[in-house]
Amino acid sequence: MGNADKVKTIAVLTGGGDAPGLNAVIRAVVRTALGQGLKVWGIKNGFGGMVENQLVELTNDSVAGILPRGGTILGTTNRDNPFHYPVVRDGQVIYEDLSGQALANLRQAGIEALVVIGGDGSLKIASEFYQLGLPVVAVPKTIDNDIPGTERTFGFDTAVGVAAEALDRLHTTAESHHRVMVLEVMGRYAGWIALHAGMAGGADCILLPEIPFSIDSVIAKIKERQQHGRQFSLIVIAEGAYPQGGEVSVSRIVEGSHEKIRLGGAGEKLARAIEQLTGVESRCTVLGHVQRGGTPTAFDRILSTRYGVAAAECVLEGAFGNMVALQKDRIIRRPIDDIAGKANNITADNELLRAGRSIGICFGD
Amino acid sequence: MGNADKVKTIAVLTGGGDAPGLNAVIRAVVRTALGQGLKVWGIKNGFGGMVENQLVELTNDSVAGILPRGGTILGTTNRDNPFHYPVVRDGQVIYEDLSGQALANLRQAGIEALVVIGGDGSLKIASEFYQLGLPVVAVPKTIDNDIPGTERTFGFDTAVGVAAEALDRLHTTAESHHRVMVLEVMGRYAGWIALHAGMAGGADCILLPEIPFSIDSVIAKIKERQQHGRQFSLIVIAEGAYPQGGEVSVSRIVEGSHEKIRLGGAGEKLARAIEQLTGVESRCTVLGHVQRGGTPTAFDRILSTRYGVAAAECVLEGAFGNMVALQKDRIIRRPIDDIAGKANNITADNELLRAGRSIGICFGD
Amino acid sequence: MGNADKVKTIAVLTGGGDAPGLNAVIRAVVRTALGQGLKVWGIKNGFGGMVENQLVELTNDSVAGILPRGGTILGTTNRDNPFHYPVVRDGQVIYEDLSGQALANLRQAGIEALVVIGGDGSLKIASEFYQLGLPVVAVPKTIDNDIPGTERTFGFDTAVGVAAEALDRLHTTAESHHRVMVLEVMGRYAGWIALHAGMAGGADCILLPEIPFSIDSVIAKIKERQQHGRQFSLIVIAEGAYPQGGEVSVSRIVEGSHEKIRLGGAGEKLARAIEQLTGVESRCTVLGHVQRGGTPTAFDRILSTRYGVAAAECVLEGAFGNMVALQKDRIIRRPIDDIAGKANNITADNELLRAGRSIGICFGD
Amino acid sequence: MGNADKVKTIAVLTGGGDAPGLNAVIRAVVRTALGQGLKVWGIKNGFGGMVENQLVELTNDSVAGILPRGGTILGTTNRDNPFHYPVVRDGQVIYEDLSGQALANLRQAGIEALVVIGGDGSLKIASEFYQLGLPVVAVPKTIDNDIPGTERTFGFDTAVGVAAEALDRLHTTAESHHRVMVLEVMGRYAGWIALHAGMAGGADCILLPEIPFSIDSVIAKIKERQQHGRQFSLIVIAEGAYPQGGEVSVSRIVEGSHEKIRLGGAGEKLARAIEQLTGVESRCTVLGHVQRGGTPTAFDRILSTRYGVAAAECVLEGAFGNMVALQKDRIIRRPIDDIAGKANNITADNELLRAGRSIGICFGD
Repeated sequence: MGNADKVKTIAVLTGGGDAPGLNAVIRAVVRTALGQGLKVWGIKNGFGGMVENQLVELTNDSVAGILPRGGTILGTTNRDNPFHYPVVRDGQVIYEDLSGQALANLRQAGIEALVVIGGDGSLKIASEFYQLGLPVVAVPKTIDNDIPGTERTFGFDTAVGVAAEALDRLHTTAESHHRVMVLEVMGRYAGWIALHAGMAGGADCILLPEIPFSIDSVIAKIKERQQHGRQFSLIVIAEGAYPQGGEVSVSRIVEGSHEKIRLGGAGEKLARAIEQLTGVESRCTVLGHVQRGGTPTAFDRILSTRYGVAAAECVLEGAFGNMVALQKDRIIRRPIDDIAGKANNITADNELLRAGRSIGICFGD
Repeated sequence: MGNADKVKTIAVLTGGGDAPGLNAVIRAVVRTALGQGLKVWGIKNGFGGMVENQLVELTNDSVAGILPRGGTILGTTNRDNPFHYPVVRDGQVIYEDLSGQALANLRQAGIEALVVIGGDGSLKIASEFYQLGLPVVAVPKTIDNDIPGTERTFGFDTAVGVAAEALDRLHTTAESHHRVMVLEVMGRYAGWIALHAGMAGGADCILLPEIPFSIDSVIAKIKERQQHGRQFSLIVIAEGAYPQGGEVSVSRIVEGSHEKIRLGGAGEKLARAIEQLTGVESRCTVLGHVQRGGTPTAFDRILSTRYGVAAAECVLEGAFGNMVALQKDRIIRRPIDDIAGKANNITADNELLRAGRSIGICFGD
Repeated sequence: MGNADKVKTIAVLTGGGDAPGLNAVIRAVVRTALGQGLKVWGIKNGFGGMVENQLVELTNDSVAGILPRGGTILGTTNRDNPFHYPVVRDGQVIYEDLSGQALANLRQAGIEALVVIGGDGSLKIASEFYQLGLPVVAVPKTIDNDIPGTERTFGFDTAVGVAAEALDRLHTTAESHHRVMVLEVMGRYAGWIALHAGMAGGADCILLPEIPFSIDSVIAKIKERQQHGRQFSLIVIAEGAYPQGGEVSVSRIVEGSHEKIRLGGAGEKLARAIEQLTGVESRCTVLGHVQRGGTPTAFDRILSTRYGVAAAECVLEGAFGNMVALQKDRIIRRPIDDIAGKANNITADNELLRAGRSIGICFGD
Repeated sequence: MGNADKVKTIAVLTGGGDAPGLNAVIRAVVRTALGQGLKVWGIKNGFGGMVENQLVELTNDSVAGILPRGGTILGTTNRDNPFHYPVVRDGQVIYEDLSGQALANLRQAGIEALVVIGGDGSLKIASEFYQLGLPVVAVPKTIDNDIPGTERTFGFDTAVGVAAEALDRLHTTAESHHRVMVLEVMGRYAGWIALHAGMAGGADCILLPEIPFSIDSVIAKIKERQQHGRQFSLIVIAEGAYPQGGEVSVSRIVEGSHEKIRLGGAGEKLARAIEQLTGVESRCTVLGHVQRGGTPTAFDRILSTRYGVAAAECVLEGAFGNMVALQKDRIIRRPIDDIAGKANNITADNELLRAGRSIGICFGD
């Protein structure tokens, strides 16, 4: 493994949650690699399929027509980690390190390099395999846009578009009914979707995990609008946003892993508090998984295609251990180890945040 | 009042919840009436504005450009009933019959006939006013399609379109992740949105208020699909659907009025039950108010325009006491009194329901 | 052939131009038929595939996931007629009657009944085969909605939606630039798309093949709007619309068959004439094939599914020689022979046309 | 003029063709400026309104609800240049320099700085006014993305989205009918829309003004696809693309100004040539003005808002003579004089172009 100009066979897998553009990345990896004479395997169902040896050969026919389709033709899962893999022993589920078996499966199939398309969790696993000697290239995937080292992850633009369209629909109802409409969008730790969708959809308040909010500020904004004759308000809240000091009881229990998080219905609680404190009819909509699936926007199809081509080129040039990233409208390479396990949050000097303040958006602080 | 060929001044109001197409109806009423030399007043904020005398003259300028816009330029409310109107006396809210005041307001403005664009509740009030001698014409509005006497209400096609698009997005995630995806759509008493959106979005199970469902049937469908290699299922459930005998505790408390209904999260409970009984990861999305607002589909814009023109023609011909309705691709007239207070539910012989059964959709029975 | 309760094997084909919903019909036919224990063949590439014996078995797997997809998994063509089939003899293309060979191919495969999904041309061929003894059921397909005997053909709602969305986009530019925007839509003989899209998109003039237009009327409408402060106008013109007496030279040569028609750029000529006669900047957009393809609307997916189920039920009940049709929100059956070769045009008493006049739309007369 | 901390009154105008996002920029400029206590005038109908003194005060009410709307509330024109302004003298149109009158109008209204939202032509005029001493800030607007110094202009993402959606629709028809579908998109000098839309829509060939194409290369690509069982091809061609050496007679007459260009139907000619040379049925769709109007994408709404805020901040800080620009996901400032009159074309080392080649797209060379 590892000698670039000898790589003849590669594999690609998709890990973690769904994100629009997965198929577009796969297509670009496959087409680029086949165009250079490589053989390409798909690993089904994420890292679990690496353990279970679920391989399928990918040809130009495999990827024909998949560019506009949501989901992933390879299947995925956000559960399985080969280094901590669930197996049943004596009727009980225990966790074992089956990374060796996973590597052996690749070796047996003659696979010399792996393209991992995934988010935070998948990058960590990819990094561990890389340290074990597997030539790995990663593509940053998350609708949340919270992977550091890249200006954009693919899937984000589509999620923002879906949320902004929902705001457009809620807007007319809010205005006609003199209501406060709250839209809860995805974003447990980072508020990128809320920030962008709120800006695109004309929200009056945008509440982010990065800025604990004061319910008083939100109420003040609603009242200020009423004084100017606007009998309605639109609020976007990230699922992970929470109030300062607990005026509204949004619970937020994080116990070490994504799976353990139980969010407390941030949007619903906020809507109830607003209705109670202002007397204005308030309604909450939780957009949920609609943000994660379906056909990607043109932007995401293009970004995914660029990422896929760039990942295949990393393989061809032997530039392993890298994640492809967007910077200054170009695709660059960043060492996975610099990124895995780190977060990308909205900071106080974020230009879009400041632009929002300039046009009078309340961020709850 | 009442002599058709003398009507010179009319008013129009929008009552009840939001529905895409309200503005299109208003535009068509106004344009048709102005074209025939009438004067048109808009009553703001539904029947409440009739009591509070909130009148605004409507001209061709008022309705320019509103055809594609959601909401209603007149405002609306689903609270105020002039026959049972909330007033504050000695610091307490009591309810009085202010219908006389409402009628006096119209009389004072010279308004001789009223076009009411509204749903079930608004039709009842319109019917009461008609019995008091006010020349009334009604336009059937509800995204739920549950008004009898018409093949379609406006707003329904848009709501179905929004829900079907959401299903398309959930579909790709369900398939990639081998999940059960549950989509809860609007429909407390009638399952039209669920039935149509489910058929359009390729749902495997569609659960309706009209057919108490067996959780066993749902599970059986999911398992049947697994046996044929389909590791995912899509379920659409109306918010008012409930289980037979209570295997899943979907609460459903109806206390006389729409405002008292508290639904118990039908979709969320179903998703949890499925995950528990099958071990398959299951997720619920509650689409909510996104179904009610925003730009109408071409179908709804056209239907709304036809309704608006037909309502204005009723006024011009003195055909009061009627609701305009769609039948056999034509707009007809139905006496409001035959319709107000009645329901339009999906019956066992519904052709679309039977078509669904023919292609293997499970309706929970 | 012909004994209904013995039909065990059927075939389905799609003929003529593309229309959103073809796959939805195929899916419904296949699922319904398989559910009743039949075997289903697909004939590829329309009636040509019947001559060339291009058969493929259709299973539940074949139709999985095709509901939202445009096009047809069977392929289609709007060229091949088995009764007048192009063959090369001595280096020249001549036309022969190969209907016998086509029937023999079906017989050899054990196919006892045929479902034809097609428009005008396909219905004629289906009718001829029916007269030769082949048990046939037809499904009316055309984006033009010009097949008689049914309130709607599938594909029409999608085409109208695409055209109306284009009008929405042109509207904002027309308004900002004080322009006349002309949108040319499909419709050689019938103006249904123009009428519906124009109504949905707020057109000021709608020009139809059924009503030869006066350029003076169009100009008068534009000037009337200018006098009321509207510095822009939106015009929808069907490709087959033509002027009275030839003030604008829109050529329209019809030589017996669809293939011979050469339309003269009705929209472009109109835009130039308007610019010349009014001095107002005018632009034309020809929407073209974008109206014919892509994912169907919810309405078309449902209608297509109902048609497909109903067609399969015709086969199961031995009700051959029928076309399924929509009437009064129900699917009914009409004898193909009553329909084939006949047209469905907009008549002067059309209610939507009259509604358009009521709200001030100019139809060029 | 020119002392930043004394600016109390500003004006904003929109020049040139329509682009989705104009209203979003206006809204952001107005809100930011009002928030800082400035007074804001809108100049109607572009630079013409500056000459004609068409001023309207802009308040928060003026810009309420305009974020999602296409077009511009100020009106625009792509004709009028104050330095070369059409006036009628003795019944004839002659051109005079009325820039002095335009400046006098601003001075009289107390306007101390001007925000110009426009493309190439508007930037040139803005630059000339700046050289005459008018404090100017510019916002780069064009759907063509061909302004240098910025990674993106607003309106481009929406145009690409519209074109990509059209390709999606054409794709299904091409595939079902075994056709070559040609989509002609905007782009006279620069092929950015064609390149991005083609990548997003899965085009097989993309023909750009920057790369004269060989019809032989296009035919070779179509035939290569046929050999691999793909009986259809999708081609995107920019309106300004032209063939090497003239195998296909696409005329391209450029006489010094945008107004003089008459393009020769590049797409239509290409489709006819392909059909003639391959025998494959080929169809062309010219997307036209649909690309220019309507509601902006979320991306364009956000970019426009950022630009508007940044332009107002330039005014507040006295940073005149600048165009705001996007670079590395941040808004920066570039001297207008460095940009006006220059082009931004796709170069051979463009990464997206190279990615396209990697996945097998033919660029006609």
